[in-house]
Amino acid sequence: MKIGIIGGGSIGLLFSYHLSGQHEVSIYTRTQEQADEINENGLHLVKGGIEQGPARVNAAPIQDWSGNEEFIVVAVKQYQLPSLISNLKDKARGSILFLQNGYGHIKWLSELATNKIYVGSVEHGAVRLNGFTVQHNGVGVTRTAVFKGDPDTLRELSNKAPSGFPFILEPDYKEMLIKKLVVNAVINPLTAILKVKNGELVQNPFYFKIFEQLFEECACILELTDKEQYFNNLMGVCEKTANNHSSMYKDIEIGRQTEVDAILGYLLELARSKNKKAPLIHNYYHCIKGKEHEREGA
Amino acid sequence: MKIGIIGGGSIGLLFSYHLSGQHEVSIYTRTQEQADEINENGLHLVKGGIEQGPARVNAAPIQDWSGNEEFIVVAVKQYQLPSLISNLKDKARGSILFLQNGYGHIKWLSELATNKIYVGSVEHGAVRLNGFTVQHNGVGVTRTAVFKGDPDTLRELSNKAPSGFPFILEPDYKEMLIKKLVVNAVINPLTAILKVKNGELVQNPFYFKIFEQLFEECACILELTDKEQYFNNLMGVCEKTANNHSSMYKDIEIGRQTEVDAILGYLLELARSKNKKAPLIHNYYHCIKGKEHEREGA
Repeated sequence: MKIGIIGGGSIGLLFSYHLSGQHEVSIYTRTQEQADEINENGLHLVKGGIEQGPARVNAAPIQDWSGNEEFIVVAVKQYQLPSLISNLKDKARGSILFLQNGYGHIKWLSELATNKIYVGSVEHGAVRLNGFTVQHNGVGVTRTAVFKGDPDTLRELSNKAPSGFPFILEPDYKEMLIKKLVVNAVINPLTAILKVKNGELVQNPFYFKIFEQLFEECACILELTDKEQYFNNLMGVCEKTANNHSSMYKDIEIGRQTEVDAILGYLLELARSKNKKAPLIHNYYHCIKGKEHEREGA
Repeated sequence: MKIGIIGGGSIGLLFSYHLSGQHEVSIYTRTQEQADEINENGLHLVKGGIEQGPARVNAAPIQDWSGNEEFIVVAVKQYQLPSLISNLKDKARGSILFLQNGYGHIKWLSELATNKIYVGSVEHGAVRLNGFTVQHNGVGVTRTAVFKGDPDTLRELSNKAPSGFPFILEPDYKEMLIKKLVVNAVINPLTAILKVKNGELVQNPFYFKIFEQLFEECACILELTDKEQYFNNLMGVCEKTANNHSSMYKDIEIGRQTEVDAILGYLLELARSKNKKAPLIHNYYHCIKGKEHEREGA
């Protein structure tokens, strides 16, 4: 099928590369320059130190997007979504899959006119090396779930998925996104502020105390009924990615904007609306915002 | 008068140097090596980039201390005090001045048999350059107060104090120590974990939010009646030392043990005994302990 992928970051490039084998993929980038680079060089993927490709995809700047693909993957950061949402409302006619972290963007989705709206949670590790090359570090899965409509397009995608890039269809979009949110809310800010790898949060007994407390606050605010399930999932991610640096760690390290608003910002808002206290979430939200502010002032 | 100074760290060296002009000073060090170095080289002080000295003091290892000085200055870290306290109980006959941070050591002082017990709070900036040289960075004052007995020895010390090394006699030891404790509890852990200079805590609007909340927790646990006075003092220290790195920042940076137990550890204990919640104090206590643990494991 015709697939349009919006966003030329690591996730946009990763999806474009893998889906281009079975589908006609167009990728829409923020800049004309990146689109030109992709059209000239094709799309490259580095995996296990070996460069693969090029894959042929059509690239164009986002303003040229007409919205006529059967399936649209929105692969921008959550903080980039507000500037895109009216465009999506006006033009998107096919099925649409949102890959953002956090939960705050869910409130915008029901404003879209299209019949099939899906959300996803990406468990691949990927780094953009340049405008047309992405490095696939940790091979994982893409979890997807229906927000509105039937799951037909997801099923088609999943059935044709290449090996090494599987899609899993989850029954409950809310549970799926909240599970990811909890992982991001605990691992990301702690590793970014303490400047440690993911595994250190459970291996260092002092950091583990904070880890537990931050989880407790999230669980309380999100009113998780099966807390243990979420905690086990969080522990599992920490152990599986023990030697990795989290995305927020890397964002802070290289002075890039983080996703803290989508993650802790969302939880802080939720806490306020429920009149609940969230001292650690408040603390780490302001630690990360302060780090971003240091860079702006520098 | 005869003065014995216990401790060969930056504060011990600084006091020995400045008091040696008017008094007969003996300094007691942890190691024989440092005592030998001081006896061979004399004591040196670097101020404004200029080396001064040598001052002549007698140096000996602590096991040689007989306790027969009229005035004893205890200039070790609070965490070093437990191993020293029985020695002090057995031998100290003169007046004694304790210069430790925190408040946890106060409970031990009433066990001492000596008549005059004083506590002090040092507002000088000093760095030990080697075993017999100290650098005097920020010239401040030494605040002192009576814990037990009359203030005669403090008065004598204060009257004979050299210019550039003044002593101030404070009326209330508790207020004096708590004021310093609040400053240390807020500035030290925040600067050490956020890796910023003291001034950044009030200049960065996000860090200032945390600064305020951590102060609020301290104020609540310490049941400060005149909160504003303590907050203004804290702000004043932050502004006066805006370009400095805190002692805990430096301790963490070079992998040295911090004073976190004397500072946040004390507050955490107090919170527990009063059945009060202290989520930020708990958090930063464990952040610092975790940093210390990282070094031990490395």
